[in-house]
Amino acid sequence: MLHEDRLFPSDPRQRSIAQALYANVRNLPIVSPHGHTNPQWFAQNKPFENPAELFVTPDHYIYRMLYSQGVKLEDLGLRRLDGGSVETDPRQIWRRFAQHYYLFRGTPTRLWIDHAFETLFGLTERLSTSNADHHYDVIDAALKSPAFAPRALFERFNIEVIATTEGPLDQLKWHAMMRDSGWKGRVITAYRPDSVVDPDFVGFRGNIKQLGELTGEDSESWSGYLAAHRKRRAYFKTFGATSSDHGHPTALTADLDNAAAQALFSRVLASNSTTQDKELFRAQMLTEMAAMSCDDGLVMQIHPGSMRNHNPSLFATFGRDTGHDIPTRTDYVSALKPLLDRFGNRNDLTIILFTLDETTYSRELAPLAGHYPALRLGPAWWFFDAPESMIRFRELITETAGFYNTVGFNDDTRAFPSIPARHDVARRVDCSYLARLVATHQLDETEAHELAHDLAYQLAKSAYKL
Amino acid sequence: MLHEDRLFPSDPRQRSIAQALYANVRNLPIVSPHGHTNPQWFAQNKPFENPAELFVTPDHYIYRMLYSQGVKLEDLGLRRLDGGSVETDPRQIWRRFAQHYYLFRGTPTRLWIDHAFETLFGLTERLSTSNADHHYDVIDAALKSPAFAPRALFERFNIEVIATTEGPLDQLKWHAMMRDSGWKGRVITAYRPDSVVDPDFVGFRGNIKQLGELTGEDSESWSGYLAAHRKRRAYFKTFGATSSDHGHPTALTADLDNAAAQALFSRVLASNSTTQDKELFRAQMLTEMAAMSCDDGLVMQIHPGSMRNHNPSLFATFGRDTGHDIPTRTDYVSALKPLLDRFGNRNDLTIILFTLDETTYSRELAPLAGHYPALRLGPAWWFFDAPESMIRFRELITETAGFYNTVGFNDDTRAFPSIPARHDVARRVDCSYLARLVATHQLDETEAHELAHDLAYQLAKSAYKL
Amino acid sequence: MLHEDRLFPSDPRQRSIAQALYANVRNLPIVSPHGHTNPQWFAQNKPFENPAELFVTPDHYIYRMLYSQGVKLEDLGLRRLDGGSVETDPRQIWRRFAQHYYLFRGTPTRLWIDHAFETLFGLTERLSTSNADHHYDVIDAALKSPAFAPRALFERFNIEVIATTEGPLDQLKWHAMMRDSGWKGRVITAYRPDSVVDPDFVGFRGNIKQLGELTGEDSESWSGYLAAHRKRRAYFKTFGATSSDHGHPTALTADLDNAAAQALFSRVLASNSTTQDKELFRAQMLTEMAAMSCDDGLVMQIHPGSMRNHNPSLFATFGRDTGHDIPTRTDYVSALKPLLDRFGNRNDLTIILFTLDETTYSRELAPLAGHYPALRLGPAWWFFDAPESMIRFRELITETAGFYNTVGFNDDTRAFPSIPARHDVARRVDCSYLARLVATHQLDETEAHELAHDLAYQLAKSAYKL
Repeated sequence: MLHEDRLFPSDPRQRSIAQALYANVRNLPIVSPHGHTNPQWFAQNKPFENPAELFVTPDHYIYRMLYSQGVKLEDLGLRRLDGGSVETDPRQIWRRFAQHYYLFRGTPTRLWIDHAFETLFGLTERLSTSNADHHYDVIDAALKSPAFAPRALFERFNIEVIATTEGPLDQLKWHAMMRDSGWKGRVITAYRPDSVVDPDFVGFRGNIKQLGELTGEDSESWSGYLAAHRKRRAYFKTFGATSSDHGHPTALTADLDNAAAQALFSRVLASNSTTQDKELFRAQMLTEMAAMSCDDGLVMQIHPGSMRNHNPSLFATFGRDTGHDIPTRTDYVSALKPLLDRFGNRNDLTIILFTLDETTYSRELAPLAGHYPALRLGPAWWFFDAPESMIRFRELITETAGFYNTVGFNDDTRAFPSIPARHDVARRVDCSYLARLVATHQLDETEAHELAHDLAYQLAKSAYKL
Repeated sequence: MLHEDRLFPSDPRQRSIAQALYANVRNLPIVSPHGHTNPQWFAQNKPFENPAELFVTPDHYIYRMLYSQGVKLEDLGLRRLDGGSVETDPRQIWRRFAQHYYLFRGTPTRLWIDHAFETLFGLTERLSTSNADHHYDVIDAALKSPAFAPRALFERFNIEVIATTEGPLDQLKWHAMMRDSGWKGRVITAYRPDSVVDPDFVGFRGNIKQLGELTGEDSESWSGYLAAHRKRRAYFKTFGATSSDHGHPTALTADLDNAAAQALFSRVLASNSTTQDKELFRAQMLTEMAAMSCDDGLVMQIHPGSMRNHNPSLFATFGRDTGHDIPTRTDYVSALKPLLDRFGNRNDLTIILFTLDETTYSRELAPLAGHYPALRLGPAWWFFDAPESMIRFRELITETAGFYNTVGFNDDTRAFPSIPARHDVARRVDCSYLARLVATHQLDETEAHELAHDLAYQLAKSAYKL
Repeated sequence: MLHEDRLFPSDPRQRSIAQALYANVRNLPIVSPHGHTNPQWFAQNKPFENPAELFVTPDHYIYRMLYSQGVKLEDLGLRRLDGGSVETDPRQIWRRFAQHYYLFRGTPTRLWIDHAFETLFGLTERLSTSNADHHYDVIDAALKSPAFAPRALFERFNIEVIATTEGPLDQLKWHAMMRDSGWKGRVITAYRPDSVVDPDFVGFRGNIKQLGELTGEDSESWSGYLAAHRKRRAYFKTFGATSSDHGHPTALTADLDNAAAQALFSRVLASNSTTQDKELFRAQMLTEMAAMSCDDGLVMQIHPGSMRNHNPSLFATFGRDTGHDIPTRTDYVSALKPLLDRFGNRNDLTIILFTLDETTYSRELAPLAGHYPALRLGPAWWFFDAPESMIRFRELITETAGFYNTVGFNDDTRAFPSIPARHDVARRVDCSYLARLVATHQLDETEAHELAHDLAYQLAKSAYKL
């Protein structure tokens, strides 16, 4: 299934350059500075249960597509919040997946799955109804062998470092278990404070209380709340964290004076805060987090622009993160101004911007990152972590911001077996883009080799301080 | 003029794949599930009058371009509402068209016209001032032969089925005449209720009254009005309708309770309704139409985002649909939410979304259609029914929504002789896109053949229940 | 460094067509209808001081990129408003530039600089730390020879005509000096009235007074103010002006009646005008300028959509135009309507629209320009004056607006040595785009030759009446 030259341009001149560039980067270690793998896997090192649990049920790319074509989430084994009955036979789930696998033609999901099938399990025939059971049996058997336990896969994937993402209330017990186990795999955490920063987060007020208990700070006072953040950030740093991550509905920032911020905090803690209050609080907290980053050095990531839980009936039945978050139009130029007015000119702060709104690449993000020392651009994200979209990212960004205001690749995934495939796709696409510049005489081949290495490896290490 | 390999990539590897894919679909019957041909043509089967009447005066793509370069619409024979004098000599109109034909370089209009000239009339030299009279004479002579009557062309074009578009007040007499004539050509209607759904439509209140008279319902009461719609939809179904079509300024939907909807209806019937009332009424009616589709099975098409009649002086002189409707920024994520909250999870409803705002392809439309079972994406529409635009459609849609959440091609035209050309362009472009995926090893050639067939023929049939 | 085939497609068929097209246009004279070169250069014809002054300090493309990667503007010799100390040694500035030159990989800046280095100074090795001094010495020596004086370069660049840009308060003394010198180089001015049209312009009220003094009109009355504009426009025309230029934050236009306009003018002259008043005044003035253009024939250029001085601390330290103007979302469809309602249908008026928001190309600008006789589209501007962006411009514009509603190329630069490079890039990119159309059989090669000439030379001359 996997052609040696997949994703390279078909033009022979471009292809041969791309091949040469890729040959030098294909085996570089994986630096995965941002993602959502489960630290429990690496801490306990228990085998993955079965093919469906490894590939289907944790992957919203997969079940959203199947759902869009009429497959019920219950039939894919997604747990209902009400405990209602759902499919429990992993083989049945697998068969449904196989039956609809043709839907993924032309999508990145297929690139990732095919890659894992062939490189991990030696399966060279594309999944379909007719070979569903065979594939299931082969994968299921493999998963029972120690070579497919999480740590073995981690090593086989040649991962130099991977970051997970945890909230401030997390005690990081899996990270502690890993540390104490003596295992050498480098799995670090990242500070994702949504649960105590976003007043719309379920359980927000209780979370703030718990934050106080954890830290011994008076987390219901503004100064105590900020101090509690600082303590948790410091704690996360002891588990290797080099970054924080912020997933807000918009990129709005604010820079209130201390009294106004304090009053706002009181309002969002009370039950009568308005929608505007809540948005303003999230905005203010981005600036507060930037201030803390100036002190403690955490790299700040902003992932804005997703309308979470667009489908209320699915949300009611299955809960959050079940494939119906939808991008919205996002503004950066005005939204980031308060934060940038205060910190944008600093060389000792790094803020990495992501987007789900491609219209901002050339109009807003590249011009901003091509000016402010504190800003860098994260790679094509989420729906745009795919070959065509990655090429558009480079086309729309590079002419204004260059390569060195970008930060290499993030896989940003919870689908562990897809990680090598995702980095491989990114390397192939970047080499193809560079090959085009060489073939059209805009770049020397020696420069392209240097850039290919930077994009595949070095920029992520540097930008994320890894 | 027509090169056998037109629109195929020039890269030899991609081109040979595209040729092979296209060879298998080029002669498939035309399924035209949405358009604006005139049923009177097929009912009466009278010859087209002359070359100008066939090619120039009904085609706003043509006269808008000429107008933009200083040609007066009067000189192209467009009728003035005040009866003022305009050019009546079709040969003079034709000469003006020929003189400015170079303006269409690089546009789809030229692809369509050249295709019709060569395949229908054997004209192989591109239109210009020097051959204007020759072309006129050849076409004019041909039009007088029975082989160029509407039904003969319909058959020659290999049209399996074509949908026209009529309003609820239309008695469908031409469709009835066709049915009664025994002619076997399949010309069906589609339900386009703007005239009784849009309070800004000229004559709206009178139209509502007339709707009541037609149906015997009390169309000035909310329940009678809805019942009247149901009756007209049923009537349209007896003339083959499988779809409704909705051309609103925005994609806004609403889901008011019955009392609120009733009160709103009263306000828009009275003379004092506000702009907001009118917009809300259109929004509510999209949801009502979706509800009716759940009952009667009509596929629902939404064509939002055009600011109609941008040029008031042209509108005053020549009326609507004279080439000055201009796209506007369009939101879907919030706008469709009320309708989707109610019906988005249904597998027995199909809503086909179109756009004039390409920024929504990857940000909104693909993520929505890649999740909601009720949603499908219509093809690149209107200004985007052109090769580069169609490729962008696939590039921006496929990675998130795949191919199977799209619905094949719509020609959406009133320019009858352009229909084969338009479908041919779409087939060539889709085969080129597929060829690129094959040449970069993202798709097997056998899969590409299956997809080429689906995109050229099967998806339109299935999605529109034809 | 400069490959003969740079920027041409690597596909051999497309490349050979592009070569043939380019061969016929590469040596055409440069028509530069809009830009910001300094007329003092040509008036005094003094040699440029040193390499840093020629290449680095006047070019915000360069120092914004260096600044984004941590280089201080002081270290590049930019003058501080407070007279604080900055680098004054041009060789040190040059070394810093050389050290960071790798940042420009993949950007148009590098294309321009490499072109100037090689064609003007015979430097064929790419700038780096190791050859920084050598390059400096070679350029510095050359600048001392008469062959590198401004007028000599003007002639060597084969410039047929170039427009500078001046404000209404400018006496055009350098243009007068040129005229009186007997030099044959055609350097004309353009009327850019921001300083007396934009109430947010620093010194606005004083500027209005000064406008009155210059013209002998009562510039603080509405009618006197308009009369003063008319006089200055006439004065600019005596120095060759054929165009005006308008750089507003948005494209908003208005068409107030005389009383309302008069009252608005009084308000913006008083100290208490609101933000809305100021925006409305700018909007009204676009329409007033269009009215004057109908009388005096000046071509009107609108450059909207930049948020000026995004970085307040840099603005406070270094002033305006120092690399931190950031594009914003721009609307044209509603914004231009008042002006178009009044003047859009005129064939004797030309309004050239530019954008920093690429989303408007296909959604708004091409449909508008493909209809209104008064509208034309300016080329890809500012951040988009670069190969990928120029190709997008053609791809997104041509199918709806064709080629003949565009106006050729503008270099829009104050970086004099980059002018031949910029026109060369534009010619190469346009030839590549045309070659693709030929290679995919959408255009005949003879037509492509005609178009290549039009895009490189004729359209700019015609549209700007040069």
